Amino acid sequence: MTSILRTRLACALALAGALAASARAADPPAPPTTAEVLAASAASDWRTPEPENLLYLDTADGRAVIELAPAFAPRHAENIRALARGRFWDGLHIYRVQDNYVVQWGDADAGEPGKARALGAARTALPAEFDRASDGLAFTRLADGDIYAPEVGWSGGFPAARDPATGRAWLAHCYGMVGAGRDMAADSSNGAELYTVIGHAPRHLDRNITVVGRVLRGIEHLSALPRGTGDLGFYTDPSQRVPIRSLRLAADVPPAEREPLEVLRTDTPTFERLVEARRNRRESWFIDPVGHVELCNVPIPVRTPGD
Amino acid sequence: MTSILRTRLACALALAGALAASARAADPPAPPTTAEVLAASAASDWRTPEPENLLYLDTADGRAVIELAPAFAPRHAENIRALARGRFWDGLHIYRVQDNYVVQWGDADAGEPGKARALGAARTALPAEFDRASDGLAFTRLADGDIYAPEVGWSGGFPAARDPATGRAWLAHCYGMVGAGRDMAADSSNGAELYTVIGHAPRHLDRNITVVGRVLRGIEHLSALPRGTGDLGFYTDPSQRVPIRSLRLAADVPPAEREPLEVLRTDTPTFERLVEARRNRRESWFIDPVGHVELCNVPIPVRTPGD
Repeated sequence: MTSILRTRLACALALAGALAASARAADPPAPPTTAEVLAASAASDWRTPEPENLLYLDTADGRAVIELAPAFAPRHAENIRALARGRFWDGLHIYRVQDNYVVQWGDADAGEPGKARALGAARTALPAEFDRASDGLAFTRLADGDIYAPEVGWSGGFPAARDPATGRAWLAHCYGMVGAGRDMAADSSNGAELYTVIGHAPRHLDRNITVVGRVLRGIEHLSALPRGTGDLGFYTDPSQRVPIRSLRLAADVPPAEREPLEVLRTDTPTFERLVEARRNRRESWFIDPVGHVELCNVPIPVRTPGD
Repeated sequence: MTSILRTRLACALALAGALAASARAADPPAPPTTAEVLAASAASDWRTPEPENLLYLDTADGRAVIELAPAFAPRHAENIRALARGRFWDGLHIYRVQDNYVVQWGDADAGEPGKARALGAARTALPAEFDRASDGLAFTRLADGDIYAPEVGWSGGFPAARDPATGRAWLAHCYGMVGAGRDMAADSSNGAELYTVIGHAPRHLDRNITVVGRVLRGIEHLSALPRGTGDLGFYTDPSQRVPIRSLRLAADVPPAEREPLEVLRTDTPTFERLVEARRNRRESWFIDPVGHVELCNVPIPVRTPGD
């Protein structure tokens, strides 16, 4: 048996022992692990994203499911839906994979007359949606604080940040967050070029670019791609680019073909317990739980209903 | 021309314009970008790691170069050298690739009588080296602070943390850091099972496991591997495991075959300028430099001498 299997068996035995001991004594139950928090969750702790806000990005390797965040980037969400409905990305490519940074996809020939694909009904440029007013925005604050922003936490299921002094809020560039590539001008993105974070959270990008959503599932089909050898991780040879078979809105897929999934809500006592379970790791393997957690180290679980 | 090429051209033009304007006026020069800091660095800003502290991990995909940190994990460094000298890893495997977490390698049959590979001259168990006394340890502090530790910064070229109240220091689990897998007991690692971080820095692992070094180059040969589909990213089918062709100390490779490389020192004014260039991004594309930086978002550059 491998040392890892020994570890998992030992963990299971330790857990069983701890639960038995807990039942015998009159002590309060041990703080739960992440797995225990999720196992004890109620149906109301989970939410089903709107099909209008879900994108299916299909490549030969598999499907990545992305949830849009129209509360933060309504214009980009609207334009991305228009692009998806127009089948804009079908046959386009993943053309950039930069280690410890991003995977980026869209039209590798964008801007090239005669080669660039038309955007159809979608707009060619949108106002920057780098941040928004925090007034009226539901926000679950993370007490541990943050290096980059005055306040961080979650809003509508997305990792976010907030500045009480300016009254602004914005999405944070945690792993798997999706943004809209732009040129030098702030108002130069349109959602046709998208990227997702595949390394340590580049929080310095927050408020410099429009974040449009998050990869809920299947990011491994993007993060495991070969890294581009050109500057910034671009593939130097067009034959290296990864074809996008299709990128569709779930709303445009027959209901029977949609992927059932639920996301843990971030505004419940269950979620607070999950944050605590990450703040103080109670799995037996941990010897010295650190008692702190940063925003991007709190997972927002996704499950298939019925699991 | 793609929007990204437009971006890079625009950046170059903007930079040229900024430099020209700066030369015309009598203003102080604009704060440098990372590229400018490195271009202006002196030879003395770089160090050549000792061949005794460099490992070459070779797979069919390419080579990852790892630098050991004997100042923090001397016993593990010694044992890893013994294992490498005994060609322990040659023909063993990368057996676990967990998205947004780690790549792990060693003997997938460890602990299985009759199948596990002997460790040769190396020890089968070592004392935990989770942290060490900070007294006497060179430490360049990061003023921006940290969520997980009272103080963070760099020591001997490695990202590290420190607690003045306890007088202890430890290595931080930034992207590319390498640690020694262990079982439940603190003193159960020996350096034969190693892992490296391929996602958002799991700082909650700090002080719970022995960190032995850092991947300097070639991490893409590990981070781009297919993710394992078993629990914790283990490959479920042995045929998926990635063979290790060899894992050798640079010191055991003929000098003419070693990879020349230099690492930026972390105890110089040049490095402080690099930290500032990450704290406030001055590349033209950035609209709102955030003015903060966290430990794991400061790259520690590696170069080939003569570049």
